[in-house]
Amino acid sequence: MKVGFIGLGLMGLPMAENLRKAGHTLYLHSRSGVPAAVQGDGMIACENPAEVASKAEVVITMVPDTPDVEKVLFGEKGVAGGLSDGKLVIDMSSISPVATKAFAKRIEELGCGYIDAPVSGGDIGAKAATLTIMVGATETDFERAKPLFEAIGKTITLVGGVGSGQTCKVANQIIVALNIQAVAEALTFASKAGADPVRVRQALLGGFASSRVLEVHAERMINRTFKPGFRVGLHMKDLEVALSNARALGVALPSTAVAQQMFNSCVANGDIDADDSILCTAIERLSGHEIAKGS
Amino acid sequence: MKVGFIGLGLMGLPMAENLRKAGHTLYLHSRSGVPAAVQGDGMIACENPAEVASKAEVVITMVPDTPDVEKVLFGEKGVAGGLSDGKLVIDMSSISPVATKAFAKRIEELGCGYIDAPVSGGDIGAKAATLTIMVGATETDFERAKPLFEAIGKTITLVGGVGSGQTCKVANQIIVALNIQAVAEALTFASKAGADPVRVRQALLGGFASSRVLEVHAERMINRTFKPGFRVGLHMKDLEVALSNARALGVALPSTAVAQQMFNSCVANGDIDADDSILCTAIERLSGHEIAKGS
Repeated sequence: MKVGFIGLGLMGLPMAENLRKAGHTLYLHSRSGVPAAVQGDGMIACENPAEVASKAEVVITMVPDTPDVEKVLFGEKGVAGGLSDGKLVIDMSSISPVATKAFAKRIEELGCGYIDAPVSGGDIGAKAATLTIMVGATETDFERAKPLFEAIGKTITLVGGVGSGQTCKVANQIIVALNIQAVAEALTFASKAGADPVRVRQALLGGFASSRVLEVHAERMINRTFKPGFRVGLHMKDLEVALSNARALGVALPSTAVAQQMFNSCVANGDIDADDSILCTAIERLSGHEIAKGS
Repeated sequence: MKVGFIGLGLMGLPMAENLRKAGHTLYLHSRSGVPAAVQGDGMIACENPAEVASKAEVVITMVPDTPDVEKVLFGEKGVAGGLSDGKLVIDMSSISPVATKAFAKRIEELGCGYIDAPVSGGDIGAKAATLTIMVGATETDFERAKPLFEAIGKTITLVGGVGSGQTCKVANQIIVALNIQAVAEALTFASKAGADPVRVRQALLGGFASSRVLEVHAERMINRTFKPGFRVGLHMKDLEVALSNARALGVALPSTAVAQQMFNSCVANGDIDADDSILCTAIERLSGHEIAKGS
């Protein structure tokens, strides 16, 4: 298939390479240029998103945030300018579900399909082609895109119509952040009360308090290993999407708002690029006590 | 062993019966009297806690709240009045870690040992002798109590010194409540944004958002099955213990405070005896939208 790929960052580049390995021809564009080392052998650099869209059948976008997707799709020499009837746009960025529905409407008015398919699994999953892909699409568009998803991901779920992929990703980021906050509050309490956080974590892993976050992030809090993983700055952006969309939709998310403020505290203390488990230091600062120190 | 058991409620009675089955002689007392059907064959009713303590070598207490433990131990005709050198008190209630340390000090001054050993697993676990037991004790006292714990529980963890069992239980209740709140916020958001909560839950179960609460409580929220399970009233009490102990210890628990308010909302709406997964209705009320209804 002739596949366009726009956005060749930490995630996008290995995803594009995996699509090439699966036999597709790639038309590439990136804000910062397409690395020379990547070009050649079915990897073709394009001047702008419009050129990508005019040459490819399916155009994938993988950029940082909602305004970036808007610019790539509808800005000067954007994807919309190069599309023609029957083409398919797949946005794999993690952005606003509400904005996604508006973007989809404009693309559909051009006679094209639109899929939102944000991922989780990080750059490791992108390289290994083991990403989790949460898809919002019609059944027909999903079937058309499926071979592409299978070349870059492992767990691929059609969550619902357009926008549902982004909605599911937001739900994921809310739960992970709040589970981190849960473990941070519990371990700070336990440690300051004089219990050993290592034994507390171990005792809780078998019961109703157990979670992937208690397995993975609690260990990072105890061992003070805050190398990402998933960066504070990105998780903050995702919670900002959650809160702005909650406002637009009419939903109240009190604990999400609290967790977002804890990430603010981490940024205020210079930790924007640390792993998101460092949220625990915000609770520690509030409490004048470090989890790992014991009582 | 001659075992005293005080508090024969939904939890205490089956625990005492399992100790009897393991061959121990039980000296029983309950505020509301010892049921006639229970007495006989090594199950002996006592007039008051002091009588229990004078006849048994080890005294177990299983009562609702911190003031109940205080009354049973140190009130008129309390356990303290019947103790003599070398006996052991084991409190299996779920109460304040800070108060526990004070109670232990007073019991130790009488030449006796003190263990805090709160449980999780509910009345089902109590009947089946599969309780999870979180123990705060010295190594010596723990070894002495171990055969008793093995007669009533399955996962038995010595978390640390006296108080650590209650601290661990509080940590457990914080995490479970906050994980329920996490799922409630995520599913209310997803549902009002138009995604199917069933598919969102399914898509998230494989990744970093996965937890026992996402497995169990999210399903109750979606299917609207709020029969306990674990009652709102009890979970509220546990969060009140968390917050009052946090104040005493000098710890700030912002999200625990939010979750406690959500339980307040459930009680305000008549749901004190419902399963704690009904916390989701507080978020739903705030958002004017029910998870199960879809968009």
